[in-house]
Amino acid sequence: MRAAVYHGPRDVRVEDVPEPELDEPTDAVVRVTHTAVCGSDLWFYRGDSDRETGSLIGHEPMGIVEAVGDDVRSVEPGDRVFAPFKASCGTCEFCRKGLHTSCVNGDGWGGDNGGAQGEKIRCPHADGTLVRVPDRYADDEDALRSLLPLTDVMGTGHHAVVSAGVEAGDTCVVVGDGAVGLCAVLAARRLGAERIVAVGHHEDRLALAEEFGATDVVGERGEAATERVLELTNGGANHVAECVGAASSMETAVEVCRPGGTVGYVGVPHGLDGGLDLFSFFGDNIGLRGGVAPVRAYAEDLMADVLQGTLDPAPIFTKTVDLENVAEGYRAMDEREAIKVLVEVGE
Amino acid sequence: MRAAVYHGPRDVRVEDVPEPELDEPTDAVVRVTHTAVCGSDLWFYRGDSDRETGSLIGHEPMGIVEAVGDDVRSVEPGDRVFAPFKASCGTCEFCRKGLHTSCVNGDGWGGDNGGAQGEKIRCPHADGTLVRVPDRYADDEDALRSLLPLTDVMGTGHHAVVSAGVEAGDTCVVVGDGAVGLCAVLAARRLGAERIVAVGHHEDRLALAEEFGATDVVGERGEAATERVLELTNGGANHVAECVGAASSMETAVEVCRPGGTVGYVGVPHGLDGGLDLFSFFGDNIGLRGGVAPVRAYAEDLMADVLQGTLDPAPIFTKTVDLENVAEGYRAMDEREAIKVLVEVGE
Repeated sequence: MRAAVYHGPRDVRVEDVPEPELDEPTDAVVRVTHTAVCGSDLWFYRGDSDRETGSLIGHEPMGIVEAVGDDVRSVEPGDRVFAPFKASCGTCEFCRKGLHTSCVNGDGWGGDNGGAQGEKIRCPHADGTLVRVPDRYADDEDALRSLLPLTDVMGTGHHAVVSAGVEAGDTCVVVGDGAVGLCAVLAARRLGAERIVAVGHHEDRLALAEEFGATDVVGERGEAATERVLELTNGGANHVAECVGAASSMETAVEVCRPGGTVGYVGVPHGLDGGLDLFSFFGDNIGLRGGVAPVRAYAEDLMADVLQGTLDPAPIFTKTVDLENVAEGYRAMDEREAIKVLVEVGE
Repeated sequence: MRAAVYHGPRDVRVEDVPEPELDEPTDAVVRVTHTAVCGSDLWFYRGDSDRETGSLIGHEPMGIVEAVGDDVRSVEPGDRVFAPFKASCGTCEFCRKGLHTSCVNGDGWGGDNGGAQGEKIRCPHADGTLVRVPDRYADDEDALRSLLPLTDVMGTGHHAVVSAGVEAGDTCVVVGDGAVGLCAVLAARRLGAERIVAVGHHEDRLALAEEFGATDVVGERGEAATERVLELTNGGANHVAECVGAASSMETAVEVCRPGGTVGYVGVPHGLDGGLDLFSFFGDNIGLRGGVAPVRAYAEDLMADVLQGTLDPAPIFTKTVDLENVAEGYRAMDEREAIKVLVEVGE
């Protein structure tokens, strides 16, 4: 089968690789139809994080179940499904608690399971991992396009605002105008935030943030951005969603957080190799919550809203490529030409 | 008047200094009767943090009101009072919220206000800052000794476990067996924690932790301590109180925290100059809450318990000196001969 393979910084190629097959009785094999390129894929693409050359990539799979192991109960061949960026058993303490990313049986894509930027994957713990799209919507391309972000960025943006403690009527600041930040704006609106201040650097993305429900947008950088937000919020917000993971964005997040407030963070702290300066949190008792998003926990709730038309993250896909041209998708995201790239893999 | 003056690392002297006087109509002048040496005083004492030479020191005052400004309503000359390590107005947004350490009118000891390790202090915002001891206990030396830790360490230990989210029936790990850690054990028991694991390095202090309510004590260091706690808690506790502020103790705290749990921290992050490694928090969604403790917010509740006999932090005072010998108190704490030193200043 065809799949994207990482060969080194800025070198992603689509090649013939062995097909994954059922191994455990809890596995499913899924024929991937749609996937995406993630902002986090850019770390290895840019050489900012290590990844073995020759490894299979992509972690946002949607597709059709092709085969299931004997123990799989929740899906059958022919079902339209999607899966989060991590596999989880669904039955351990942490899955029961909604913290699927800490599943004691957790597994992921790449390696023997195949990457989601490929024609097939083996899904471990299919019952716990796969989310079945109701039959009525299983071939509705518009619905599928809107559901695809639930594999990662929509659940991650949601996790940021949930971690920041956003509730109806609140004022919330979202730092970052990438796909996750934009999804955090959607999530904050969905949770009933009355005021949503989006902080970013790109005019077109901030315009989309406004479409998504941001009541104020701040395009300034650094100190000027902080001052503008403090002015808009009369001294900071109690709820700040940090959706980048860079040292500068974390700094902005804590500076615009009101004393006693909470920063919800979901950006893998790649830009924080020097460590987090805790003093800025300490002095004003600003809490820090979040981490790698348990998007599986949120999938059913968010799917219900997508299918009833009250939530639609599809506009974050500003470019579509087919699998053979996935490298062009990486390039477009790397050069910030596209917010997020949808990859059409097959029928 | 006589007061302790900082002259450089390990050089604290008691000297004649000018008496503070009423300045603002909201001030009170308090004749200090009792105070203490704090673990945080050791930072400048050891030269680990900067402090101006010639500055007045001490921030845990208890005494008798000597004079009050025209606008002061809650105390009168002759009242027995104590005050937290920071002054606060009691009426701003953050004081109303119980976050007195972020008071917009906040002030502190040292400088023109005098240090608490001296015969008199000027207390700004007396109505918001001073806590009046009920007349019945105003001259009860035992009660005063038990109340004195409410100026700082008892409220700080309480803040650690509150920040960690400890509630009745919970399992809680307390990292650190200094005065704050020991008070955190007391606070956790007071809040009804069913299991309290105290982690420290000193046999005598861990013995006191057991007296204070720790159900398990762990005296191992580093990795061995972590392993022991994980064993005792079957994989970590949801609530961890970090009461040291060193890089190693924060590391232990996050390692013994169960995925999805919360580290409550109150140790000024002095040992974290290199910054906090966020990855260990990120992967398992471990929250970080706390900061400089708003001990004024807790003073009335904790005082009620002390006076009814259900809370008694007095055993943390393992040495008593008079003001003229405060340097000996610093020495004893620096050399870990004493857990915490009480300073008898005057009648």
